[in-house]
Amino acid sequence: MAVYTRVDENELNAFLADYDLGRATSFSGITEGVENSNYRLSTTEGEFILTLYEKRVNTDDLPFFVDLMAHMADHSITCPQPVADRNGVVLKTLNGRSAAIFTFLNGTSNNSPPAARCYSAGQILARMHRAGADFSGTRANALDHLAWGPLLAQSDKGVVDYGADNLPQDLTARARARLDDTLARWPDDLPRGVIHADLFPDNVLFVGDDVTGVIDFYFACQDFLAYDLAIMMNAWCFEADGSFNVTKSRELVNGYQSERRLSADEINALPILCRGSAMRFFLTRLYDWIHTPKDAQVRPHDPMAYWTRLNFHHNVDSPSAYGIKAPS
Amino acid sequence: MAVYTRVDENELNAFLADYDLGRATSFSGITEGVENSNYRLSTTEGEFILTLYEKRVNTDDLPFFVDLMAHMADHSITCPQPVADRNGVVLKTLNGRSAAIFTFLNGTSNNSPPAARCYSAGQILARMHRAGADFSGTRANALDHLAWGPLLAQSDKGVVDYGADNLPQDLTARARARLDDTLARWPDDLPRGVIHADLFPDNVLFVGDDVTGVIDFYFACQDFLAYDLAIMMNAWCFEADGSFNVTKSRELVNGYQSERRLSADEINALPILCRGSAMRFFLTRLYDWIHTPKDAQVRPHDPMAYWTRLNFHHNVDSPSAYGIKAPS
Repeated sequence: MAVYTRVDENELNAFLADYDLGRATSFSGITEGVENSNYRLSTTEGEFILTLYEKRVNTDDLPFFVDLMAHMADHSITCPQPVADRNGVVLKTLNGRSAAIFTFLNGTSNNSPPAARCYSAGQILARMHRAGADFSGTRANALDHLAWGPLLAQSDKGVVDYGADNLPQDLTARARARLDDTLARWPDDLPRGVIHADLFPDNVLFVGDDVTGVIDFYFACQDFLAYDLAIMMNAWCFEADGSFNVTKSRELVNGYQSERRLSADEINALPILCRGSAMRFFLTRLYDWIHTPKDAQVRPHDPMAYWTRLNFHHNVDSPSAYGIKAPS
Repeated sequence: MAVYTRVDENELNAFLADYDLGRATSFSGITEGVENSNYRLSTTEGEFILTLYEKRVNTDDLPFFVDLMAHMADHSITCPQPVADRNGVVLKTLNGRSAAIFTFLNGTSNNSPPAARCYSAGQILARMHRAGADFSGTRANALDHLAWGPLLAQSDKGVVDYGADNLPQDLTARARARLDDTLARWPDDLPRGVIHADLFPDNVLFVGDDVTGVIDFYFACQDFLAYDLAIMMNAWCFEADGSFNVTKSRELVNGYQSERRLSADEINALPILCRGSAMRFFLTRLYDWIHTPKDAQVRPHDPMAYWTRLNFHHNVDSPSAYGIKAPS
């Protein structure tokens, strides 16, 4: 439920005076997104999103994000395109926050996407990886494998209040063992590039099975390209009951490979990359679960959904378990 | 911040299958409104609002509200027009809630409207009063003057936690004295009709100084027409510092009278009607302030802003204090 910073009509009109976007005809806060404040903005010139960056986003990273979105849009990836003011400035200030206007994208998302959408989503990820090849910006992955140990240490508080029950008492000890195992096997020689790093189903918009847009680039960074695919395998291919849908996984990877062929090393690394990406989301969710005040507006995601995924991947020893042909 | 009931894409599409509205092209929760869940819905046929009625709204009242909106729209009052499904049904069920689709209105609102907008807003209120004359629905005002005593009694908890300070210790005793005085003078013979009963600035949409729509009919009922104007005098004519802007008041009443002339009795009753409407909002805010849990998503409005207004009106003894010529 995200509008943390209010913008009234006078403030909006003063802000819009810098742009060639005509006059506001409609303006309302939208509930999607948890990091920033987002408004749907209609003007006489079109449909836009106004984003105010809240304190969880490092403002030093903002030029990377908006430049990347502009780059992707230039390469026919439908994503929110930053709109510059009359002086060519994209990143502005509004009510004490960094702020930017983006083009609005049609489409709806589905947290339980059908297999056909997994194929389309895999395709768009590979197209983004290709489009990123000539992007000059750089941003290290602040949540890469080296960050996981410290993150776990900060969540090691013993028993944690977990609704009716508590989190398992030995959870962090077991996570530590899983983490040590994953880090010992972590690859160091896979193809790298710009990754989205958070391409969950709610960040891909569709009309029917056609992708109409990719949103939320605020975790984008440089890392292994195949790690981005592993993030999607976790986010797109598990059902609500925790079961792994191998058909969706196959479609996702086939869609990806229709646009960018994975190397044998990348395919062989998928089980360990899936463990790692499950660990990354388990750890950030665990951290948020423990550190979010009880009366916060935004309820943290359940970390245990990712603990289940993590354990699934620790029982996988070949890419064939994901419906992928092992490389010959 | 209002989306209490989530609607996913599959649920939305199943719901839309009953309508001739084409296919959804965009769907997002909007933060405006505190009583119900509201979504902005774009389809291949147009722009709409989907509302799910939460438990604070009595479902028995819903036919009155949607019929009134349809009636107003038929009488050239721009307001959200209920959209019927293929069987002519407006009030439907979605995810266990009563739900309805309305046409979307352009326009933005301003919590500190300039005087020119007060004139336009007064005009639209009078036009609504005229349009309501041949509306057949009936709904008693659940928050009329007879409800105020019980409401105050339910808020009489002595000292109340009020942020840094507490509410004045003798507040409810002082409010009781004000209330007794107001009820003793309450008129019983003014022109009655359908009133909006909640026409605050955020419920009137503008482009420039032209009204593009009136929203939020969920307090509408039968009561004194001039009481509706008194509600607006409280909501539109006080500045943020608590001072009364007599220019705005004059514009509001002049705008109203340009469409419907007030009788001498109505004009003479305005001071007492203003006391009453200030009391009504003071009491519901005080009640919400006391009864809203600390960790609720929606922060209650400050009751003391209406206590200040109430006290202003108790020092008024003639409509001329509001910039209105006393009737000859």
